[in-house]
Amino acid sequence: MSSLDPAVAARLKRTEDGLVAAIAVDDATGDVLMLAWMDDEALHRTLTTRRATYYSRSRQQLWVKGETSGHTQHVREVRIDCDGDAVLLRVDQVGPACHTGAPTCFDTDERVLLARE
Amino acid sequence: MSSLDPAVAARLKRTEDGLVAAIAVDDATGDVLMLAWMDDEALHRTLTTRRATYYSRSRQQLWVKGETSGHTQHVREVRIDCDGDAVLLRVDQVGPACHTGAPTCFDTDERVLLARE
Repeated sequence: MSSLDPAVAARLKRTEDGLVAAIAVDDATGDVLMLAWMDDEALHRTLTTRRATYYSRSRQQLWVKGETSGHTQHVREVRIDCDGDAVLLRVDQVGPACHTGAPTCFDTDERVLLARE
Repeated sequence: MSSLDPAVAARLKRTEDGLVAAIAVDDATGDVLMLAWMDDEALHRTLTTRRATYYSRSRQQLWVKGETSGHTQHVREVRIDCDGDAVLLRVDQVGPACHTGAPTCFDTDERVLLARE
C-alpha cells in the first residue's frame, strides 16, 4: 500500500504493471536526462523528499537515484501530464545522469535511430 | 507483424503491453512537449516517414500526431536510451502539442504536483 496522496493517485493512468513514465530534465540546461518509471510509492517519496526515486522494472524494487553512484537528482519541480501517464521532473543533476557515465541516457552516436536532418 | 528493422527491434525493452515510451521535444525550444507510446510499427512508421506516429493505449490503435487536429510533428531526430525502453524525438511542432490546446501536455497550474522551489 502506498502513502501517495489519494488525490494524486486518482489522477494517474498506470501501465498494466502499475507504473507511470517519469522524465527527468536538467533544470539548468533543459536537457532530457533520462526516462525512468514510478509506482505510487516512488512518486510519493519523490514528492515528499525531493530526492528522485524510481521503480526498477528489472529489479522490481524502488531505487533512489544516485544512492550507490552518488549521481543524485534533487527535484526542483514535478508536473503531471494531461492524461496522467507521465510526470516531468526538473532536477539538479549531480554528475552524469546515465549509468554508462554519459551526461544523459540518450547520448553517444550509437543511440541515434534517425539521423538529424 | 511489424516492419521495424530487426536490429532496432532487438534493442527495445517493451512494457508488458509491448510499448516503449516516446518523449517529444520541441526542436526549436528544447521544451518537453508530450509523452506518448509506440509499438514496433509506430516506431517503424516514424523512422521511415518522419511524421510522429504513436500507439494509443486507450484506443488501441496507431495514430499520426495531428492527423485530425492539424497539429503535426515533423521528426528531426530520433534517439533511443541506454536500456531501450524510451525514445527521444526532436520535432518541429505545428500549433499546440496538447489536445487541450496548451503548448505542452505539462502546462497549466493544475499540472503542478510539486511546486517549484
